[in-house]
Amino acid sequence: MAWSADTEFDGFEERGFELEVEGRFVPGVYWTPRSGADRLIMLGHGGTTHKKTGYILTVAHLLLQKGFAAMAIDGPGHGDRDTTGISNGEEAEFERAWDQGGGTKASTSDWIASLDFVESEYGNRPTGWWGLSMGTMMGIPVVAKEDRICAALLGLMGFWGPNKSDLERLAPEITCPVRFLVQWDDEVVPIDSCLKLFEKLGTQKKTLHGNPGLHAKVPKFEISGSIDYLNRHVR
Amino acid sequence: MAWSADTEFDGFEERGFELEVEGRFVPGVYWTPRSGADRLIMLGHGGTTHKKTGYILTVAHLLLQKGFAAMAIDGPGHGDRDTTGISNGEEAEFERAWDQGGGTKASTSDWIASLDFVESEYGNRPTGWWGLSMGTMMGIPVVAKEDRICAALLGLMGFWGPNKSDLERLAPEITCPVRFLVQWDDEVVPIDSCLKLFEKLGTQKKTLHGNPGLHAKVPKFEISGSIDYLNRHVR
Repeated sequence: MAWSADTEFDGFEERGFELEVEGRFVPGVYWTPRSGADRLIMLGHGGTTHKKTGYILTVAHLLLQKGFAAMAIDGPGHGDRDTTGISNGEEAEFERAWDQGGGTKASTSDWIASLDFVESEYGNRPTGWWGLSMGTMMGIPVVAKEDRICAALLGLMGFWGPNKSDLERLAPEITCPVRFLVQWDDEVVPIDSCLKLFEKLGTQKKTLHGNPGLHAKVPKFEISGSIDYLNRHVR
Repeated sequence: MAWSADTEFDGFEERGFELEVEGRFVPGVYWTPRSGADRLIMLGHGGTTHKKTGYILTVAHLLLQKGFAAMAIDGPGHGDRDTTGISNGEEAEFERAWDQGGGTKASTSDWIASLDFVESEYGNRPTGWWGLSMGTMMGIPVVAKEDRICAALLGLMGFWGPNKSDLERLAPEITCPVRFLVQWDDEVVPIDSCLKLFEKLGTQKKTLHGNPGLHAKVPKFEISGSIDYLNRHVR
């Protein structure tokens, strides 16, 4: 359990970390304004990408500008834990990467251990989740189990894919406010399965935002709007 | 075709008007900041209500505070044109009121004539539509036909009710930006029919906002958000 390289991220501070969780190597990254932050967002990346992929850095940057700290880890079988080529865009390997990486159970333990580690250094702070697609496959189990998370931005996922049954079981256990993004022409996760997942979220403080377009084509205004949403609810 | 009573509306100006359109009596109301306005919103009320029902006045007030002018008329068989008791909440009379009032064809002519009348006095200005439920039954035909309308807030309606076939025919002709509100537990208009209507809107600049709750229980944050939406798009 150790901090690794500290670097600079456009005027903010970026700290790598490496944990061992149940025998697994968990590589993570933590970003903070130099003056510190009193709120934290956990960023779950999408399938075939990794903890520092382009749009995760964009979201982290927007959050840091609002005064949040942010953290991310590589998901099961992704990024620095890739053994299948999934992070190079080998989409056909997605399920294998997820399952060989330990799936829902490992992912949830990894995220909780990573939050514990960050809190051991920086203390407990109001914490939110931001994650689309595989970021929601990882997010729903964590948000369902973790009282420390007080709001979540989820979406681009349905009762679909390798942890479908976990999502069905855990979605009703979510009680914090959720904004849920869907793409009406989603070619990866069928829109009907996304609407069903939204419907089954246990919280009554949930809003669905739907736009035309393919899976990865979430409009920019929804991304900036998602930051404003977390800024209002993570307090 | 004449202005009637001018009154005061919490510091703003309220002007009644009465038109004759294709032999029909059309009662309307126009609200404006005393200093004038360079943008206009048309407010379509819901079924069993009327042009000055409580929530329409609330929305008008929010718009006036942003510097918009606003206008409303009574829909077919509603308000001052009521012959069935519909505006007293006789919901069972809804279809009869709508049809006896002339339905889609009469409503569309009435709205266009009312916009012409207001423009004859105040000139052409960027114009938007705000209307839920029957306000969308009236709104879709007007927005589809009227190039003068540059954005619309619609919702709480689907391929349902007395002008279902008009909505199916005209929704694809809408090309301006639309925000579309739905209530996931809508007990009046089935949610599936609402999602289908959203899907068939011709514009690609459309966003669906869905929340839990019954038909008339749109969250307050969606109402204030709808004003901000029109404020950005009606320019």
